Amino acid sequence: MSTPKLSARPALLFDLDGTLVDSVYQHVLSWSDALESEGLHLSIWRIHRRIGMSGGLFLKALDRELGTSLTEPQADRLRQAHAAALLGRLDQVRPLPGARELLAALSSMHVPWAIATSGASITARPTLALLGIPESTPVVTRDQVAYAKPNPDLFLAAAERLGVPPGDCFVVGDSIWDLLAAQRAGALSVGVLSGGYGQEELERAGAYRVYDDPADLLAHLDELGIRAAG
Amino acid sequence: MSTPKLSARPALLFDLDGTLVDSVYQHVLSWSDALESEGLHLSIWRIHRRIGMSGGLFLKALDRELGTSLTEPQADRLRQAHAAALLGRLDQVRPLPGARELLAALSSMHVPWAIATSGASITARPTLALLGIPESTPVVTRDQVAYAKPNPDLFLAAAERLGVPPGDCFVVGDSIWDLLAAQRAGALSVGVLSGGYGQEELERAGAYRVYDDPADLLAHLDELGIRAAG
Repeated sequence: MSTPKLSARPALLFDLDGTLVDSVYQHVLSWSDALESEGLHLSIWRIHRRIGMSGGLFLKALDRELGTSLTEPQADRLRQAHAAALLGRLDQVRPLPGARELLAALSSMHVPWAIATSGASITARPTLALLGIPESTPVVTRDQVAYAKPNPDLFLAAAERLGVPPGDCFVVGDSIWDLLAAQRAGALSVGVLSGGYGQEELERAGAYRVYDDPADLLAHLDELGIRAAG
Repeated sequence: MSTPKLSARPALLFDLDGTLVDSVYQHVLSWSDALESEGLHLSIWRIHRRIGMSGGLFLKALDRELGTSLTEPQADRLRQAHAAALLGRLDQVRPLPGARELLAALSSMHVPWAIATSGASITARPTLALLGIPESTPVVTRDQVAYAKPNPDLFLAAAERLGVPPGDCFVVGDSIWDLLAAQRAGALSVGVLSGGYGQEELERAGAYRVYDDPADLLAHLDELGIRAAG
């Protein structure tokens, strides 16, 4: 018998923006504002398709799409302008339906879970606060690893915090960068539509299964073979 | 020989928001603001997937998704709050790359074209102004037909304005509601990704061909068999 892909007790590694909190569209327009403040214009759908990837890679993609070559001080100003614009929109951000309930259910089933986000601590912390999760929750932010998504580092670090091999984890994410990073971490992945990607895009990026949002995932945990500890 | 699907000189019927102007994300957050002002919360991706459809049908879908039963005065307040929020964001709205050039190229090739939008005149007019098109451009807005998309009325009226049978038209749109309405109008449709839908979603809704945005469509007019009048 070959080694199964997941043990009988998989852990879950969650992305944050678009997966647990309804913040993707605010991120998108905040990047658009930041670019405009530097006199740069990129179509908003192209920004949307880059949310969740490393900020550094986002800026490289921007250079390619705009034919620019951003300087390091410009890149820094863009990151700061994005964070400032986002902080101004945080009062509009809500947890996604079922997010709190899903995390509470996993905890009560003794299923290990963690959060791994390409976001910096400064924007991630106020968003995490919306979820009402314990202080002890393992959370890995951009500042804590060398490379963000689609590199696997965030998910590898999150699995390590849980003491679970990455191959025993499901990554749950809304963007193709989550799903590509999951493949590189050797984990299976579950897509959610709540970040605004279409189902087929997520499947083509390797999603093992796709649900609407955390509430829909919670209602179908059986499909992932996730059970309360016996 | 059977009747061909399109004559040798097809006309183009354009959607406006997300197809010619980069306004979908502003519409999305304006609906979110309007709902919040009535104490209603709907995930933002679900609003995104409804943009471009008739406002009346949008509100019916909302009733289903929220389990509410909106009264007519509530629906009116929502429409007004959306329009007010959108007007406050219009300074952020830009034409999509290649939109002006595409329309100018079609005109210089003597290819008939028109615009058909589910938007009301009050929000469509300032958006149209960004395109710098002649006053004489045939434009059909929500106010001028009985039913908006996915009903075919807007595209049928636009084809009639051009004096071209609907079956001799390509509908160009960013949302599945455009593409479904095109099918009901008996027209072929071309999808653009610039409204934030994925390519596969547009293909599954009937798109004959999908391009990134107006600039990409302009660069590939040959693929649609669109030529300058000989």
